[in-house]
Amino acid sequence: MKTQVAIIGAGPAGLMLGHLLRAEGVDCVVLERQTPDYVLGRIRAGVLEQITVSLMERLGLDARLKAEGLVEAGFNLADGERLIRIDCEALTGKTVVVYGQTEITRDLMNAAPARGLEVIYGVADVALHDIESDAPYVTYTKGGAAQRIDVRFIAGCDGFHGPSRKAIPASVAREFERVYPFGWLGILVDVPPCHSELIYANHEHGFALASMRSKTRSRYYIDVPLTEKVEDWPDERIWDELAIRLGPEPAANITRGRSIEKSIAPLRSYVFEPMRHGNMLLCGDAAHIVPPTGAKGLNLAASDVHYAAEALTAFFRRGEADGIAGYSAKALARVWKSERFSWSLTKLMHRFPEDGPFERAMQVAELEYIASSRAAQTSIAENYVGLPV
Amino acid sequence: MKTQVAIIGAGPAGLMLGHLLRAEGVDCVVLERQTPDYVLGRIRAGVLEQITVSLMERLGLDARLKAEGLVEAGFNLADGERLIRIDCEALTGKTVVVYGQTEITRDLMNAAPARGLEVIYGVADVALHDIESDAPYVTYTKGGAAQRIDVRFIAGCDGFHGPSRKAIPASVAREFERVYPFGWLGILVDVPPCHSELIYANHEHGFALASMRSKTRSRYYIDVPLTEKVEDWPDERIWDELAIRLGPEPAANITRGRSIEKSIAPLRSYVFEPMRHGNMLLCGDAAHIVPPTGAKGLNLAASDVHYAAEALTAFFRRGEADGIAGYSAKALARVWKSERFSWSLTKLMHRFPEDGPFERAMQVAELEYIASSRAAQTSIAENYVGLPV
Repeated sequence: MKTQVAIIGAGPAGLMLGHLLRAEGVDCVVLERQTPDYVLGRIRAGVLEQITVSLMERLGLDARLKAEGLVEAGFNLADGERLIRIDCEALTGKTVVVYGQTEITRDLMNAAPARGLEVIYGVADVALHDIESDAPYVTYTKGGAAQRIDVRFIAGCDGFHGPSRKAIPASVAREFERVYPFGWLGILVDVPPCHSELIYANHEHGFALASMRSKTRSRYYIDVPLTEKVEDWPDERIWDELAIRLGPEPAANITRGRSIEKSIAPLRSYVFEPMRHGNMLLCGDAAHIVPPTGAKGLNLAASDVHYAAEALTAFFRRGEADGIAGYSAKALARVWKSERFSWSLTKLMHRFPEDGPFERAMQVAELEYIASSRAAQTSIAENYVGLPV
Repeated sequence: MKTQVAIIGAGPAGLMLGHLLRAEGVDCVVLERQTPDYVLGRIRAGVLEQITVSLMERLGLDARLKAEGLVEAGFNLADGERLIRIDCEALTGKTVVVYGQTEITRDLMNAAPARGLEVIYGVADVALHDIESDAPYVTYTKGGAAQRIDVRFIAGCDGFHGPSRKAIPASVAREFERVYPFGWLGILVDVPPCHSELIYANHEHGFALASMRSKTRSRYYIDVPLTEKVEDWPDERIWDELAIRLGPEPAANITRGRSIEKSIAPLRSYVFEPMRHGNMLLCGDAAHIVPPTGAKGLNLAASDVHYAAEALTAFFRRGEADGIAGYSAKALARVWKSERFSWSLTKLMHRFPEDGPFERAMQVAELEYIASSRAAQTSIAENYVGLPV
């Protein structure tokens, strides 16, 4: 098979890129190791920045997002006692939309056939070849049969564990990483959320996050040592802990219920440079991971995809190669700012085993300062709604 | 001897408090262990916030400050290549004044006799007694003779090593401390400064600060491991290092000269709670230390003194005790915010031995974000010129 761009991975990054390229008349194929149902089974973040909403709008795939998404004008930081509201709309003129990543993926997936976006699921042994040449190709097996796609470019949208990043030689690469000494224990529950906006709490007992997927589906998290096991956390124990950590006002409004999903996710900051090598471009988790604090993961993938689609379109439609050459630097400039925000919000809202009373006092002082300063609130708000693309 | 308030320490905090009390008709005596010349020999910070300038104005002791002080509309962060200007005046409507702490002390000291402020220098063995009672007293020796002053209140303005803080029982106290793994090697030189505004630099080689005391006297710093000795740093070696760390533009304007003072100072964050016990109030370094990054030390002493003078005046002139009761909480609220700013600017601008490539990348990303964000610049500026009292 021969096409212009092979996209590895049919998560939201790969599907979004595929749709953007198809809309511009660029030929591409998306390869996905898993089945559609498996892809849709991944529970991820659900707070969309303007950039992500705009891309769905541009694709004309925002009908359900507009109908079902919850527009949020702000969010809250909690210090165990009170809520410090960050009024994003008043401070920046922008809002975010609560709409699950899974729903974005579903919308993109469902629209693929009608838009002529070919997605091949259930492929195995994906390998990238000759990415430094102008004639790279991808090999894989499907139903036991070996396949090959010849292309001009490869887009690696295959997440942290995919083969794309590994195709870049170590000699040209730099990795930056921080692994956090705790995980997020999350539950998904079909009950109304305790608050109309997200609440990030830093309490003596630890971190908590109250969020939602809809007006009837809640997503809650607490941080736990990485040594903890899900089995040790029956729902009631989590509800009790949430009621303490979120503080009195949210606690009074918690509706308890049975979890329909429960898991512990580790937290990591990771950046791989460069994001392009030869004719292979990395997008999203394939190149970088943020801790979930601040909900930047999907939005960062969206800005990568935006830059990548621009660069590839300029190449195929106008023969301009500058966008390809500059892709890594352009994408990384925004990546590093989002990494910084996610890291600093993680540091502000969690207790670290290595921290002593002074560092804890600094967290309290920072929350106090934020509560008192419009400038500090504006800085947080502009990062939360998304820095300019 | 009997008076209303005994002030321990004739540094800027003690002298300023003494003048403020005398201006309101409150009787007081200032006790100082050292000689006037020794006190004036201490080289300290020289950037005054509005609060400090205002206090000198209120005392009518601002003539020289107004004549000789350099009004600074902003300052700069440097990342080794460029200057990121923080335009405090445009962002906050406020400026700072460069005027050495030594000069403040001199102005206050010189005005004492005419204002009826008694300062007793060269006292030894200062001890505080019965601070929990309404009749505390201070004992000391002067020229070998034992002395006693009976008072209603004691103000501990005697710095980190003075006896006042130690008079508070450990059972009611909490200490918060962070010691930094480097020191500031500083030189004072009679040459024009390399830039009209301060420059804080974070370069691969480490931290540097270009500051000034006047248009003809410069104060430069670099950070060094605490194991370094002043003897290992001849002036030329320091000038070479400054030229590298400050970056090309400032380096081109450095005028080298012979240092008239050279020393290595450790960096520490420290807060003692409470700042009042019984009828003893702590002000300035007696209760808290900030690292010099951001020049908050003297200014924080000034806000303490402002609150203490208000509380004592209300007590003696109007019989109101609420100000005394609330002094510690009021002063600490501002102390913690200044501690936070000094700590965060220290963390942003220095390399820490425990930091890896990711943490270093976070410093670069934060400087990049600051350079791009008016909100982030405003947050830094409002802290630099001083948060509201």
